[in-house]
Amino acid sequence: MRTLIKGAMILTMEEGVPPFQGDLLIEGTQIAEVKESITADVDDVIEAEGMVAMPGLVNAHQHSPMSLLRGFSDDLKLMDWLEQKMLPAEANMTPEDIYWGAQLSMAEMIRSGTTTFADMYLHMDQIALAVEEVGMRASLTRGLIFLEEDQGRRMEEALDLVERWSGQAEGRITTMLGPHAPFTCPPEPLREVILLAQQKKLPIHIHLAETKEEVQKMREKYNKTPTEYLYHLGLFDQLHVLLAHGVHLHHRDIQRLKGMRGGVVHNPVSNLKLGCGIAPIKEMLDQGITVGLGTDGAGSATTLDMFEEIKAATWLQKVDYGDPTILSAQEVLRLATIEGAKLLQIDDQVGTLQVGKKADMILIDMKKPHLQPIHHLESLLAYSVTGADVDTTIVNGRILMKHRRLLTIKEEELYRQVTERAKRIVFGI
Amino acid sequence: MRTLIKGAMILTMEEGVPPFQGDLLIEGTQIAEVKESITADVDDVIEAEGMVAMPGLVNAHQHSPMSLLRGFSDDLKLMDWLEQKMLPAEANMTPEDIYWGAQLSMAEMIRSGTTTFADMYLHMDQIALAVEEVGMRASLTRGLIFLEEDQGRRMEEALDLVERWSGQAEGRITTMLGPHAPFTCPPEPLREVILLAQQKKLPIHIHLAETKEEVQKMREKYNKTPTEYLYHLGLFDQLHVLLAHGVHLHHRDIQRLKGMRGGVVHNPVSNLKLGCGIAPIKEMLDQGITVGLGTDGAGSATTLDMFEEIKAATWLQKVDYGDPTILSAQEVLRLATIEGAKLLQIDDQVGTLQVGKKADMILIDMKKPHLQPIHHLESLLAYSVTGADVDTTIVNGRILMKHRRLLTIKEEELYRQVTERAKRIVFGI
Repeated sequence: MRTLIKGAMILTMEEGVPPFQGDLLIEGTQIAEVKESITADVDDVIEAEGMVAMPGLVNAHQHSPMSLLRGFSDDLKLMDWLEQKMLPAEANMTPEDIYWGAQLSMAEMIRSGTTTFADMYLHMDQIALAVEEVGMRASLTRGLIFLEEDQGRRMEEALDLVERWSGQAEGRITTMLGPHAPFTCPPEPLREVILLAQQKKLPIHIHLAETKEEVQKMREKYNKTPTEYLYHLGLFDQLHVLLAHGVHLHHRDIQRLKGMRGGVVHNPVSNLKLGCGIAPIKEMLDQGITVGLGTDGAGSATTLDMFEEIKAATWLQKVDYGDPTILSAQEVLRLATIEGAKLLQIDDQVGTLQVGKKADMILIDMKKPHLQPIHHLESLLAYSVTGADVDTTIVNGRILMKHRRLLTIKEEELYRQVTERAKRIVFGI
Repeated sequence: MRTLIKGAMILTMEEGVPPFQGDLLIEGTQIAEVKESITADVDDVIEAEGMVAMPGLVNAHQHSPMSLLRGFSDDLKLMDWLEQKMLPAEANMTPEDIYWGAQLSMAEMIRSGTTTFADMYLHMDQIALAVEEVGMRASLTRGLIFLEEDQGRRMEEALDLVERWSGQAEGRITTMLGPHAPFTCPPEPLREVILLAQQKKLPIHIHLAETKEEVQKMREKYNKTPTEYLYHLGLFDQLHVLLAHGVHLHHRDIQRLKGMRGGVVHNPVSNLKLGCGIAPIKEMLDQGITVGLGTDGAGSATTLDMFEEIKAATWLQKVDYGDPTILSAQEVLRLATIEGAKLLQIDDQVGTLQVGKKADMILIDMKKPHLQPIHHLESLLAYSVTGADVDTTIVNGRILMKHRRLLTIKEEELYRQVTERAKRIVFGI
């Protein structure tokens, strides 16, 4: 299968390459050619005049089934949100609910320009199945909370996910081990996970310092910051680690993270909406730490539109420093693409539009009043575009959305399923 | 002309009225009936199943022609932005450019659910003309900067606008006097404007305390905060005043504003993007000060999507207080509708869906993955909806956009005009 994208404004996101008018040829799952004009015998031509072609966005931290709980418990304190609303509702979720919740999230992600996501939840085989069918790229992680004895069940499920699904779905699925967070993982079991990850050369996905309360709790219990706690258990020694949030980091914590493999996922909308704080990502970037962007689950962030995260990320650094030059449009677009790909260890495959990489890309329709006139393309992409401006989404060379129509998800059936399931989950009926 | 909207989820925004499934009848320019089911002989029926009907949004502070400079000078320091980029470009603008820039902004506003806007700029007759033709509702103000002698030309234009355009365009146009800001209006000319406004019973639209630098400047020059400066000149004595920004207000400043007529327009996206700061709107609301929302000009904010402002406004208060319960979905939706209408002194006409009020309303299509399932309607409207979800926009009983198609603006011609004009303004060719 050969597809030719004609006459787009191409933003490859390669360092130092400015946007240019051109064509892009997809052969099978890969980008075969990118240049000013391509003549080729192809199966399909997408006329992309007036559109921007750029790499698909990487949502580096998510809990996809929580879209079933979107808007269910907004404007509540974090602990009320979690204990009175989220946990009882999640206890009502069946494996099938997880499948449909993941599909709902994927429908939203594809429609708003995300091609890859990193997911941490439970019943991950259901999510893997949905990913396989829908066609997105994903890094999947079984979340591990070690606060009650479970005879090793969760750990078993985590390893089962890794063994059954790593490299599956034409290589679109990768996996990580997911100790949930410093405050939910005591030293003994966490050390075991770290050892196992080292033996099996598996990356780790973990929450870190999302709230002030977490930092306080860890200080009281271990006389360490959450970062110091992980550091002293050896998490940063050899492993590739995806740290979600990193809001409440001390300067010394950032020094501990300097030189780490992996990096930090910034989730600005969730952090704002839950009142958590502003993560010091400018400081981390200055220290050479890789930073990507994520939405967190729709239970807190309400939406999964990565263009919202792009805006929020740059706004927050600008206002935090009182300086509008901080985290420019170009820089923040990198966080949402190639830097996120690095966190998922797939930057050799996606994150830029380069020959030989996988064809994971989006077309954005610029013929809208809020995207005209075009003085500076990256500014419009960072500050003006929303997910709704994405016209076409392609993953692994396969078109998942064309001219705003989803090709691998049946939307009417999806809405029927999630409406019924959401009612049952919340009201238990 | 009688139009019936059938089967919508209606959010009237009247205090204490929850959303309900129902019909709404428009007769001429007015809302004639709102209830669960209406049977009537009408000219037009809009099937609104799966849609939300709510009051159109009020953008209470704007500089509409600056959409021509969208993205032209992002990621710059405020003074560089203004002096090196905005002022030279604005000097190249012709009255015709102003007309097309205003039309571009209106295209964007109508497409994102705004029905009324408050505008401060120059060549206001061009903007009034565009408003008359396009069909929006607007409060227009000629900005007055008294830093150079102009033989009263600006003041003359300001009064000319008031006399020629107040109440025109079927009553859709109102006017204000617009002394630009404390730091651009010395005491003598400002006192004259205040006197004139009192004599003619005109409201005032003015910028206040947008930046730290402004506060510093006023302290150095007058040993007063910008608010104290205006207070001592008598601005808050009898006049209805629209204060744009109010970012850097001291607690004592807020005490000065307590009990004022009019109130403050919060422009969170512009304040973030220019790194200005977080306005203390929770504190103002607690003191009973009316607060509305605005986008500021697209030259700074990049977009004019009021749903972005709704999100940003509530996010900022939550993170500023470290408390997610601050400024709930219901509260922030009020700021964007009825509270904004109060600031423009048109709350007897718009801002809620009530019988006898003008039919200024929007329909939002909820059949989108990011708006499903529907646990809590106001949460979705505040945290998930974007301007692109607006299906239909109605002002003064006239449909300006139906199913995403603009009916009073020719988009292709508009894009052609603004692309050419933007080039000439920026490059002088």
